[in-house]
Amino acid sequence: MDRVFVVGVGLTKIDRFYERSAKDLFNEALFKAIEDSGGVKPEALVVGNMTSSVLMEQDSLAALLADHAGLKGIPAFKVEAACGSGGAAIYAGYSLVKSGLVETVAVAGVEKLSEGGTSEVTRALAQAADAEYEVYYGVTFTGLNALLARLYMSKFGYTRRDLAHWSVRMHEYASYNPYAQLPRKVTLEAVLDSPIIAEPISLYDSAPMGDGAAVAILVRGEDRAREIASRMGRDVLVELAGLGFSTDTVDIGSREDLLSLPSTRKATIEACRMAGVEIKDIDYVEVHDAFTITGFVSLESMGFAEKGKSVKEWIDGRFGKGDKPEVNFSGGLKARGHPVGATGIYQFVEATMQLRGDFPGFKASDPVIAATHNIGGVGTFSIVTVLKRYK
Amino acid sequence: MDRVFVVGVGLTKIDRFYERSAKDLFNEALFKAIEDSGGVKPEALVVGNMTSSVLMEQDSLAALLADHAGLKGIPAFKVEAACGSGGAAIYAGYSLVKSGLVETVAVAGVEKLSEGGTSEVTRALAQAADAEYEVYYGVTFTGLNALLARLYMSKFGYTRRDLAHWSVRMHEYASYNPYAQLPRKVTLEAVLDSPIIAEPISLYDSAPMGDGAAVAILVRGEDRAREIASRMGRDVLVELAGLGFSTDTVDIGSREDLLSLPSTRKATIEACRMAGVEIKDIDYVEVHDAFTITGFVSLESMGFAEKGKSVKEWIDGRFGKGDKPEVNFSGGLKARGHPVGATGIYQFVEATMQLRGDFPGFKASDPVIAATHNIGGVGTFSIVTVLKRYK
Repeated sequence: MDRVFVVGVGLTKIDRFYERSAKDLFNEALFKAIEDSGGVKPEALVVGNMTSSVLMEQDSLAALLADHAGLKGIPAFKVEAACGSGGAAIYAGYSLVKSGLVETVAVAGVEKLSEGGTSEVTRALAQAADAEYEVYYGVTFTGLNALLARLYMSKFGYTRRDLAHWSVRMHEYASYNPYAQLPRKVTLEAVLDSPIIAEPISLYDSAPMGDGAAVAILVRGEDRAREIASRMGRDVLVELAGLGFSTDTVDIGSREDLLSLPSTRKATIEACRMAGVEIKDIDYVEVHDAFTITGFVSLESMGFAEKGKSVKEWIDGRFGKGDKPEVNFSGGLKARGHPVGATGIYQFVEATMQLRGDFPGFKASDPVIAATHNIGGVGTFSIVTVLKRYK
Repeated sequence: MDRVFVVGVGLTKIDRFYERSAKDLFNEALFKAIEDSGGVKPEALVVGNMTSSVLMEQDSLAALLADHAGLKGIPAFKVEAACGSGGAAIYAGYSLVKSGLVETVAVAGVEKLSEGGTSEVTRALAQAADAEYEVYYGVTFTGLNALLARLYMSKFGYTRRDLAHWSVRMHEYASYNPYAQLPRKVTLEAVLDSPIIAEPISLYDSAPMGDGAAVAILVRGEDRAREIASRMGRDVLVELAGLGFSTDTVDIGSREDLLSLPSTRKATIEACRMAGVEIKDIDYVEVHDAFTITGFVSLESMGFAEKGKSVKEWIDGRFGKGDKPEVNFSGGLKARGHPVGATGIYQFVEATMQLRGDFPGFKASDPVIAATHNIGGVGTFSIVTVLKRYK
């Protein structure tokens, strides 16, 4: 069957846009993606979004966005898998073009957290957790991740200072990324001195709350992708070659082991198998690091480091420029930002740009195979994509 | 490419289940569908749902349901397209199996409106409308449909009594349906005397608020479908042969014409084209009738009657037993019930059962081609399926 290619991408800067609507942000990202594809009109729209029902009091989101963008009439629906909504939208969007239902699709993520105040947003994000088994008892989403961080530190002998190294490097990368919400460097001391949100997680261990929209346009068939690349003066194609999607319990109390994410492990293996590559073949990866602890556990669960070892390796300089894989040169959720349902699409767009060599920030070392890793909840949903560059 | 077949279906009765959870309802419908398929294990789950974020304060719904049903690990996500969420889940689920990502999928709808009181539910349902252009001014979802009803009555010279004939016939059919929320007959007078919700729409012109879950299992490949049918002692196959999905503006003030639904027209044409049938070939149809006016406008928009003529034809006895098409022998949203995001799957399951000849209520006259029509908002989303029976 015909393969699926990424032919156009677009991002907004991530920020708190109190005076811009979700429609407006979506339009900016969509029009950039259409322009980047030389004018491909999407025949369908899949939107990853988590909080529109609660913070915007708006369902029917996908039709609202399609109409506002001048695409009234096309099939359009919203996909929700908590913070993994963007990744799930890629999974659904890929299948729409691959199945032959449509020839082109826009996979989008949009989130407008600034519609709510801090307590409303904290409550909305907690809906990723189990309403009956977890949230009912008052735990926040940061609180759940703090349990995981404390266990990890205790089991493997790490300190808050050790974990903080993730944040320092992400902020360094973000300082080069024009789309990043927090494009500024921080020191280890600044991370350690920042206010505690849920011990041991501090403000600077956490992804910020922000708004953003990201769009990627997928088409079926190498000929069409090649024709678009040629028209746009690009000498490379980017194929969406592998997809893996797996789920776990919502409540973390039912897990056998909190220190790895089986859904991430399964999704990674599945995506690599589908793409016909080994995990060690991956040159570049964007991993889901909503908190510093999440970045490390994600790297280990994907198979890039042994359990409990990634922090030491990170401090020793692994996963940086020139290593394999290179990790999160966008700045990650931690510093590029985490507009929840849009995050999976941000990662996907950034990885595509790194493969094409036109990412306007810290550049990867000429990668050929890239992966993205997007999770919802504490590893409740994991979606992994594998992208391949062809000359 | 291999075709897609419906091999197992399951429904719960629709009611206000104050003491049962969404998980529990989903399990009942899923296990019935798995049993009905002779034990097919779904490799993925797509859940249509509108209100879980607002009424249950629960996102991550799809993973929650998958885990509770013993399907932890499979790809699972929620799809939202307001009241058309079920139809959109069928569209996404079809593409997952057709694309080859998975071999089998459960397309499900689940809604638990009894989690909220009447005013909360009214507010949640209004989120189908435009938050900024409509709901902000205080209009409810019934209010929007009332505008449409008044215009229709005024333009084509009908009365409340005329429209009430829809309700009478739906309640008659529902009285035979063991899954129906309102399985009891009503008289024209009872409809006219029922309390006004939003003039000219009365209580008995409206679908009731209820909870329910519905599941259909889809597989790719005729051989597999035939093997399952044979094992289950069935002499027919049901193919999901056509799908159409179209969207319109969310706010009805931006429409050129309120008295037809262009998204429904487009989706119907597309579904018929894909299935290789004409609209006049359809033997049986389940149409979306959230209000009596919606039933008539839907029939006209699909192309089964001329604009403004369906009410007169209905009163004269058209669309009943022995006619072509036969319409809504389930009792429709009006009397079978309308568990919002599950409704599209209810229709799909009922049409499948009618084709197989095992619908446990009012039976269609041996149909070979059936269609379902599910909308979200006031025709903002329209999803039409065409099902074919093979010996």
